[in-house]
Formats: sequence, structure tokens, C-alpha cells
Amino acid sequence: MRIGAIEAGGTKFVCGYGNEQGLIEERVSFPTRMPAETLADVIEYFQDKQVEAIGIGTFGPIDIDPASPSYGFVTTTPKAGWSGYNFLGEMKKVFPVPIGWDTDVNAAAYGEAVWGAAQGLDSCVYYTIGTGIGVGVFAEGRLVHGMVHPEGGHVLVRRHPDDTYEGFCPYHGDCLEGIAAGPALEKRWKMQGSELPPDHPAWAMEAYYIAQAVSTSILMLSPKKVILGGGVMHQQQLFPMIRKEAARLLNGYVSHPFLREGIDHYIVPPGLGDNAGLSGALALGLAAYKQG
Amino acid sequence: MRIGAIEAGGTKFVCGYGNEQGLIEERVSFPTRMPAETLADVIEYFQDKQVEAIGIGTFGPIDIDPASPSYGFVTTTPKAGWSGYNFLGEMKKVFPVPIGWDTDVNAAAYGEAVWGAAQGLDSCVYYTIGTGIGVGVFAEGRLVHGMVHPEGGHVLVRRHPDDTYEGFCPYHGDCLEGIAAGPALEKRWKMQGSELPPDHPAWAMEAYYIAQAVSTSILMLSPKKVILGGGVMHQQQLFPMIRKEAARLLNGYVSHPFLREGIDHYIVPPGLGDNAGLSGALALGLAAYKQG
Repeated sequence: MRIGAIEAGGTKFVCGYGNEQGLIEERVSFPTRMPAETLADVIEYFQDKQVEAIGIGTFGPIDIDPASPSYGFVTTTPKAGWSGYNFLGEMKKVFPVPIGWDTDVNAAAYGEAVWGAAQGLDSCVYYTIGTGIGVGVFAEGRLVHGMVHPEGGHVLVRRHPDDTYEGFCPYHGDCLEGIAAGPALEKRWKMQGSELPPDHPAWAMEAYYIAQAVSTSILMLSPKKVILGGGVMHQQQLFPMIRKEAARLLNGYVSHPFLREGIDHYIVPPGLGDNAGLSGALALGLAAYKQG
Repeated sequence: MRIGAIEAGGTKFVCGYGNEQGLIEERVSFPTRMPAETLADVIEYFQDKQVEAIGIGTFGPIDIDPASPSYGFVTTTPKAGWSGYNFLGEMKKVFPVPIGWDTDVNAAAYGEAVWGAAQGLDSCVYYTIGTGIGVGVFAEGRLVHGMVHPEGGHVLVRRHPDDTYEGFCPYHGDCLEGIAAGPALEKRWKMQGSELPPDHPAWAMEAYYIAQAVSTSILMLSPKKVILGGGVMHQQQLFPMIRKEAARLLNGYVSHPFLREGIDHYIVPPGLGDNAGLSGALALGLAAYKQG
């Protein structure tokens, strides 16, 4: 089988294809431009690939309610030109194959459950922590959509007592994304996150914030795995700090071997590494194919 | 049909029965004593009722993982005598009928989805705000269990700048339950919540905390209805305050008609009123019957 996969980001689109075992056989990427131009690149790429299904994991917010008149649209994004764009509809016009459609983070959560760190489990929460913070939720064997889709990057966290940075989220100021995504690191410390040394106090503060989000997701959803991906999480030193802080916050109240003895295997990086997004899109395509 | 229902609380047990339309035909209650004594009361009540199934919604934490060796047990509760008690197993010994088993708050969320405020919807979040705070989660048509079950009463919220009360949660001090459950009202204001007049500043502070929890649940789970029950929510003046504060916190970021025009019908009291728990248990019993 050959299944197409699209990881549609606000700055770049990654396209590729793979097989039903999750093996990515090719991946290319190009910058995200205006919708028509970007879709032209996508169409050109897939035109001769003869894929049997396609999965799309995309930036949003998007409409993923099949009963909605704007199903398949990008909705209220500030990204120029994309708000109100019928992404899925345009794809369907050109490719008469089953097409899976979800948020980039739900796709990644699903990919991790099918082939990655949460393989064989019926629940996980996936965070991407990079230029923004997004959350994908897989619960009781299903991706959570609900009214719109989770937007857990924007929860409020308690401010670190030493933090004077006001946050950059245009909607919420110092919500999680506003004080813990990549741009917050850069604005607070006047240095790119990737340039901050591993023992810089920036990372203890970052872990303080991310651990609150992790602990909230455990209390709200009780997932069987918490997966932390995205550019900021390339800082491997964050993992032990986040695990320790999350355990301190929960303080034994949620009692399960996963937390008591297994926290190193419970709060983890993506099993699919930087392919989590594209593999997730592949998994969505495969699921769409199976549904017919 | 006649289905039995048990709403097992830390201070009292409510038992009753009803039919497959959710009509409660009888309810009785008795104090929660030690497990053996309490179960004797339960058994005596149901002995001659000839129920075709039973649903149990119980205080916890409990084990609701059918694959676990301690499935059906009350687990780490501080409630004397109950920790490690095989509640479901003891019931099964006596009543050879299908028995549904979940947390009290998951039962209430389910009851609301079947017969109450979330009727016909495939998701809702149910909060009970009383002597403690509990959260039941129904998502994509299923009750969320995950690793253990949600314990969303214990999330951290930002402290109100005028609040000097340290919180009473033995695990987390000033988590949501620690600063917003009934005992926090009483300890902070030196007066029972039910005695505080509706225009007392206590309620603005209470709404400030509950709205944070509501907004977090919307961001993490995107439910189609948020239902607020429990003794504290008998203070009807809280609803408009919570809706307004939650909308202020979300600040238009999550965009959906439910929030834009319909918030009065989105953040609501239980449709089943104070029967939410028992009706939920009835719904669990009915579901167990259908599963066989």
C-alpha cells in the first residue's frame, strides 16, 4: 500500500508517503504560502504518486465536525489568507481517495498511539512545544474533537515567582503558550532557546510551567502516556526536571504504577521523533482508508 | 424493566431503582458506615426488588480497569475501612445481574448525556462542587477512564489577588478543591457557604476559581456542554458570574456558537438536578444490561 501524508504547518508543509506499517518512504517540505499556491505545490507533489489514501494533520483552528457546513475548513487562524479556506474540499476535488483530516497535534497523538511511544495504549496526550504550544488528545481509543478540538496550549498556569516576563499570547498574555513557547524563552532571556546552555535557570522555569500543564492533563484526562514533542523539547535536560516537578505537584494523589515506578517511561519524548507529525498524518490516512 | 441504582458517597449511600426511560421510581438513603455494614444495608434494600441490572456510581478513587486484578475495588481513599475493599466483587456475589461500575462523577456525566442537560450530545464535562470537587468526563460518546480516572478537582488555579486563605487539600493545599470546595468557603469566610448572602464578595471569588476550571476543561477537552452540580452550585447567582469570567478568560480564542451566542445554555446546572448522581447510576446499570 502507498498512503500519502501531509503535515501542514504555519511555516512549512511536509508531504510524503509511506506504507501501512508506518514506514515513511519519502518526505519533502516547502514553505507555507497563500492557500492556492501552497495547495498547488501539494497537488503537484501527489499527482504522480498514486496514493490509495491521504491523511492531513494541519495547523488550525480547523473544523473537524463532519456534520458542520464548514467541515474541512481552516477557521479563525490569523495566518493571512487561510481563514475560511476549504482545505479538505480542495484536496477532495483533485484526489478521489479517502482523506483523513484532523489537527496536527491530534494526528501526532494518533501516530504515537499507532506506531510510537503510546503503541498499544488506548489513550495518550501529545504536546508540541515550539513556536506555539498545541495539544492532541487520544482517549478511550478515539481522538477527542468535542465542540471544536482541544486547545490545551492556552491553559493558565501559575506564574513562577521569579518570572517578570508578561507573555506574548495575543489572546491571553501569559497563558502556557504565552510564557512557555519558544518565543517566550527568547523574549525573556534575550537569547534563542537553542543557544541557552543546558544548566541555565531558563530550563528550571520552563520545566516549572510544562510540568503544570502535564499535571493538569493527568488530572483532567488520566492518559496512559504523556508525550512531549516540538523544538523546545529537543532540550533533553527538560525531561527529568519535568518528571520531578510533575510528581511534586501531583504529590501521590493520583496513584498508579505508571507514576509511582514508571514515570521515566510515562512522560516521554515522541517515539516517532520528529516524524511524529508526518507519521500521524499517515496513520490518519490509513484510518480513512479502512473506513472506506 | 427495573434497574437498580447506587450513588455511593463518602457520607451517605443513595439506593433506588427506575426504568429504562430514566424514571426514578424509588430512592432511599442511609449513612455510609464501614464497608461490610454498608453493603449489608445495600443488600437488604435490593434483596426483594428483582432488578435486572444495577449501576454503581461511587466515591473513590476506585479501580475501573477491567484488566486490573483490583478491578472493582475502592483503592487509596482515606475513608476508614474502605481502602482496598472489593465493592463490585461483593455485589456480584449476591446479585447475579449485569452491574455497571464507575465513579460518582462519571456516572453523573453519563446520566446527563443520556437523560439530562447533555442529552443527545457525545461529550460533556460534569463538575460536582460540594464538600469536595470531582469531575466526570464523557468524550466522543465514551466515559473517560484512561490510566485511573479523571481527578480534575485537584488542578491548580491561579490564586485570586485578595485571597489569603491557604487551602485545605491535604495533598495540594490550594488546588481547586482546596480553595473552592465548600469547606474552603467556610474556613475563609468563617460562615457556612449556604449562609453567605448572594451579593457577598465570596461568590465573585468562587466564580473566579470555578471559571478557571471550566475554561481549562474547555481548552483540554472541548466538551459540548459543561455541567456544574453539587451543593455549592445551589447558589444560582454563581452561574452568570462563572459564564462571564470563563468568557473573559477564553477571550474569543475558542470560537463556536455554543460560546459566542449560547453560553447560557453551555455552562449549566444538571438537567437531572439533585438526581444526577442516582440517574447516572441508573444509566450505568442500563448500559451494563445492554452489554449483557
